[in-house]
Amino acid sequence: MTRSAFLTIRMPPTGMPITLCMPVLAALAALAAFASLTTGCAAPKAASDPSAAAATASGLPSDLPSRLPSWRPGPTRDAIVAFVDRVSDPASPDFVPEGERLAVFDNDGTLWAERPFYFQLAFAIDRVRKLAPDRPEWRTQEPFRSAIEGDLDGLAASGEHGLLELVMATHAGMDSEAFAEEVEAWTSEATHPTLGRRYIECLYAPMLELLELLRSRGFTVAICSGGGTEFLRVLAEDLYGVPPELVVGSRIEMVYVPDGEPRIERRPAIAFVNDKTTKPIGIFERFGRRPILAVGNSDGDFAMLEWTTAGAGPRLGVLLHHTDADREFAYDRTSPVGRLDRGLDEADDRGWLLIDMAEDWDRVFAERSN
Amino acid sequence: MTRSAFLTIRMPPTGMPITLCMPVLAALAALAAFASLTTGCAAPKAASDPSAAAATASGLPSDLPSRLPSWRPGPTRDAIVAFVDRVSDPASPDFVPEGERLAVFDNDGTLWAERPFYFQLAFAIDRVRKLAPDRPEWRTQEPFRSAIEGDLDGLAASGEHGLLELVMATHAGMDSEAFAEEVEAWTSEATHPTLGRRYIECLYAPMLELLELLRSRGFTVAICSGGGTEFLRVLAEDLYGVPPELVVGSRIEMVYVPDGEPRIERRPAIAFVNDKTTKPIGIFERFGRRPILAVGNSDGDFAMLEWTTAGAGPRLGVLLHHTDADREFAYDRTSPVGRLDRGLDEADDRGWLLIDMAEDWDRVFAERSN
Repeated sequence: MTRSAFLTIRMPPTGMPITLCMPVLAALAALAAFASLTTGCAAPKAASDPSAAAATASGLPSDLPSRLPSWRPGPTRDAIVAFVDRVSDPASPDFVPEGERLAVFDNDGTLWAERPFYFQLAFAIDRVRKLAPDRPEWRTQEPFRSAIEGDLDGLAASGEHGLLELVMATHAGMDSEAFAEEVEAWTSEATHPTLGRRYIECLYAPMLELLELLRSRGFTVAICSGGGTEFLRVLAEDLYGVPPELVVGSRIEMVYVPDGEPRIERRPAIAFVNDKTTKPIGIFERFGRRPILAVGNSDGDFAMLEWTTAGAGPRLGVLLHHTDADREFAYDRTSPVGRLDRGLDEADDRGWLLIDMAEDWDRVFAERSN
Repeated sequence: MTRSAFLTIRMPPTGMPITLCMPVLAALAALAAFASLTTGCAAPKAASDPSAAAATASGLPSDLPSRLPSWRPGPTRDAIVAFVDRVSDPASPDFVPEGERLAVFDNDGTLWAERPFYFQLAFAIDRVRKLAPDRPEWRTQEPFRSAIEGDLDGLAASGEHGLLELVMATHAGMDSEAFAEEVEAWTSEATHPTLGRRYIECLYAPMLELLELLRSRGFTVAICSGGGTEFLRVLAEDLYGVPPELVVGSRIEMVYVPDGEPRIERRPAIAFVNDKTTKPIGIFERFGRRPILAVGNSDGDFAMLEWTTAGAGPRLGVLLHHTDADREFAYDRTSPVGRLDRGLDEADDRGWLLIDMAEDWDRVFAERSN
């Protein structure tokens, strides 16, 4: 159940790049230093998107654009609006009954940022530091020593096995309620290393508006992430209005413990990795149906979009292309985190919509009141 | 992932009983002939149920009893009504917010009958017979030969491995949509061997009324069954008004196949058995929360009730006791299918409600219009 990805990490003190192989386990495997990650620049977006033209051609009147204020007017916004209109308007020939209006969104890089590394990895490292006083043996034991000392060189050198140990030590061995408390406490304070805001303030305003628009039109809006299900469930209702039962992610093994206070405990083993070709499985196991709308940002979402758009009836696949080095990050074909390569090549032919962050979004990050 | 149960089967041609050991795999493992299964008779139900008294004591006014017309007036019905009232009435001190009002129901023996064998096993046997013309090798190969010839002796003799083969051959090797068509075609015609009605007419009217009552009070009503998830999903919306995303069951391995028409294929391996102590896991993985109401009928539901009722706040566990040999079946402590032993012993102390089918239900089976 593990897969590997190659990452190049440039270590802050020396600037020396190293290449390592690591698992995409529970979306915790991408580890990269800050300096090396603004790779690749967006290819210019085609002026006339065929799927956008087709969708707009449905010609349905709509008040929906006004509910996407962070989106700039243009073919991308119009194509999304036209799709939502034609599947939710009972008078439309493409009308889809409400119970079948399932939309799935990737999380890292789609609903919130994912650079310079997945936020859940930052949680794991911070958690090691928090637990360290009770685990004196960690001071000399990798990968814990490196995590405690903020030594990314050492963390990288511990390789796949070391990172797995890091995940298990920080995400297991407690019941689900205790784990949720840990995640909540962390997110209330933890701050993004370069964006100058807390991680939970790195949410994309245009996407939050889209989630709300979809729900107002009778869609079930679910998250389908490579990240850990329980990690995301703690946050998704507050951040995205997505309740726990609509969060599909990777899973750790769990076991029922009847003794004492009957509870479910988390065990140090991966039960399911929800990434790439297993995203369709994760969705189908949960909902028993194929979505009609899938939104992602990397080749890890390719199979999810492919499966979604291959079904009968009206369907839409959407990829967010990170093209905005000024306001967020610009990366695609060569990025170790959120690589978008095959998706860029095939989106047009498949009728998938490409969101160009720099061009299509008037505002990137949502404001947060607490 | 396999567990064993002992079954005594009396074979129709000879009447000779045999004992066998078999897995409870995807709820297909209970195999028993008709004659030997009306074992055990119900212990008389305690006149004053402490949990019923406590619940009724909430004293909330209610129009709910009129919506349970197939239930006889009495402490069982009153306790259920009082619980529903006190968690869904905003003025109640025990009010539970709507999103947390999760109710889980076992299926076999709780929502529909399970004797003389689980209905899904009847489907598997019938499906072997249907596929047989294209599989001439099955004529001499166990357990298929026995299934084709209706030879329950032979089927039993093939043991655990043989029954596993039967499940795999009939539930895998096709995509999910093709499997759903098979199940639909079968249920439209297949008839229960002793009750004189189709399997899909063996639903309990009082339980259907309870599902509807709960939904009208803002409950999410889910099924948590040892049976196969995909088998149940085909039926649950039509039979119970429960959509696919609210069906939790055992699962076969699935794999995403992108070639040709991208699809999810079913593989001949068990991914998850949702029974006994894994029922809490199945529920938690799906919903990310603990139910407040759990309804079952056998010791296979014990952990589900135990976990449900151990949480904080108002909670209710309910067991249906099959005491009605005249209208349905009477069985409990020694039954190979749906054994209820520990549950009978501990229900009172745990404050769980016991439904006495013969006493508490005015009508057993629901009428069906098609």
